[in-house]
Amino acid sequence: MDVNGPKVRKYLKKFIVGPEKKIRLKNYDTDWVQHESFRNQPEGEIKNLLMGVLEKDQNDLFAAQELLAASHQYGILIVLQGMDTAGKDGTIRHVMSGVNPQGCDVHSFKVPGPEDHAHDFLWRYEKVLPERGMIGIFNRSYYEDVLVVHVHPERMEELPKVIGPDSEGFWDGRYKDINAFEKHLVRNGTLVLKFFLHISKDEQKKRLLDRLAHKEKYWKFSVADIAERQYWDDYQVAYEEMLSATSTKYAPWFVVPADHKWMARTVVAEAITSAIDGLNLSYPTFSDDQIKHLMDAKKDLEEE
Amino acid sequence: MDVNGPKVRKYLKKFIVGPEKKIRLKNYDTDWVQHESFRNQPEGEIKNLLMGVLEKDQNDLFAAQELLAASHQYGILIVLQGMDTAGKDGTIRHVMSGVNPQGCDVHSFKVPGPEDHAHDFLWRYEKVLPERGMIGIFNRSYYEDVLVVHVHPERMEELPKVIGPDSEGFWDGRYKDINAFEKHLVRNGTLVLKFFLHISKDEQKKRLLDRLAHKEKYWKFSVADIAERQYWDDYQVAYEEMLSATSTKYAPWFVVPADHKWMARTVVAEAITSAIDGLNLSYPTFSDDQIKHLMDAKKDLEEE
Repeated sequence: MDVNGPKVRKYLKKFIVGPEKKIRLKNYDTDWVQHESFRNQPEGEIKNLLMGVLEKDQNDLFAAQELLAASHQYGILIVLQGMDTAGKDGTIRHVMSGVNPQGCDVHSFKVPGPEDHAHDFLWRYEKVLPERGMIGIFNRSYYEDVLVVHVHPERMEELPKVIGPDSEGFWDGRYKDINAFEKHLVRNGTLVLKFFLHISKDEQKKRLLDRLAHKEKYWKFSVADIAERQYWDDYQVAYEEMLSATSTKYAPWFVVPADHKWMARTVVAEAITSAIDGLNLSYPTFSDDQIKHLMDAKKDLEEE
Repeated sequence: MDVNGPKVRKYLKKFIVGPEKKIRLKNYDTDWVQHESFRNQPEGEIKNLLMGVLEKDQNDLFAAQELLAASHQYGILIVLQGMDTAGKDGTIRHVMSGVNPQGCDVHSFKVPGPEDHAHDFLWRYEKVLPERGMIGIFNRSYYEDVLVVHVHPERMEELPKVIGPDSEGFWDGRYKDINAFEKHLVRNGTLVLKFFLHISKDEQKKRLLDRLAHKEKYWKFSVADIAERQYWDDYQVAYEEMLSATSTKYAPWFVVPADHKWMARTVVAEAITSAIDGLNLSYPTFSDDQIKHLMDAKKDLEEE
């Protein structure tokens, strides 16, 4: 794998956070659209315009995953983060639905339990990393351990005080741990792609109200989601600090404009397929000797 | 869940192995087709005839899985077994490709390693059982521990001799362990559905030769597959004994006619959807008090 990080199509590069760059999220559009003609179109129209593109991306991704499995050299870890309603579940469903389910492994992480708290913060994620040949998706991830707990440090009271969130260099230490962990993954053949689905506060309000307007969507809803919204600005600061500290050449963050769901899905799909293409994988080849063995087996079978 | 086992559509019942029935596989068609008019059609034509049915099944399965996740009461374990080339991978790909990848977890099991051998034979499977709300698929399973090792008992030399395959009642003990394990799963809310993809020896020959005729399919091929074919009759006996001993009311085996790939896929898809339908799940409902909370939250949000 190129140590300069995943290779992606040119237009995707503007979403990548440059390493060691201090970012301000307000400099990243939430409502970016690929073509000027999409702008001010109703959501349904953008969907229609992009459905064909996404369908092609799904086919490309199907082929890319087959090759990934056949060549059996690399695994892919995809990390998805974003505020509530940012579209993580929908992105997984629409981007990955064409991929062979046998080659794709999705993990959502619940609130950590006592066994998780009894270990270091990366432990529960390490256990479910994708193996070679597979695409693994983390729907939320170890980045929650520098996001939700950064906004609510009282949720980390299991840590001894001297190494807890009030200790010197605590957050910087976690960022370094994450960077070292990802470097280890990359060095050992896991391509790491990280997507922050970036929505505006207004768009979140719209989506929450939409869920509250439809009784059949209530079950997806928790009053806690609205309570958490009051910390919006704190989360944006936590995201900015995290993105600035953990976007590396080998494991970059993409800040994906996500006010338009179909646009976000297309960006994520194209980033994944083009990163796999960039690995220049090929189907396994066979030595003359191996082919002779196969042909002997064929002859035996025919004469059976 | 009905203790009498999964409820499935009427036509599927003929594929279920009745509990405590001694079965002979030659009494089960491998080339059964649903309608007389399909018979003697070329494979491509059967595919055309069934594509629409399978597409409907995929949509039904998508909806069934959503409901399974929302109601969060049951998990589903699907066990797929069959001889090499029986179509396990293709069945997973075509049956499950419409399902939300977040709700479906596929596991293939490699040859057991030293850590696996150091534990009881069910240990490595228990670790990856599906959780409530999920569909878990085992592509091969703990049934290999009464199949491949029944044909090749020398592969179990890690077991102390007194409790090994030569000890009295060894295989019967394993069947009982499996039945007790599955009873435990069912009792705790996992629906267990088991499919044996049943192909003829001629059909296997055809499929092996087809793989050997296409260079791009070589990588899927191992000379060991052909070597294993010489044990065909031993495997049939092992399957018959296993199916007779482990098809229970609560976790039945389906012997799926699999010479026609599309027919097999349709049967599996319809068995899964109708078993989920049979659970009579419903979306979560809310108390007046919970709805009041949601409406208060909505009001706060609107006035923000």
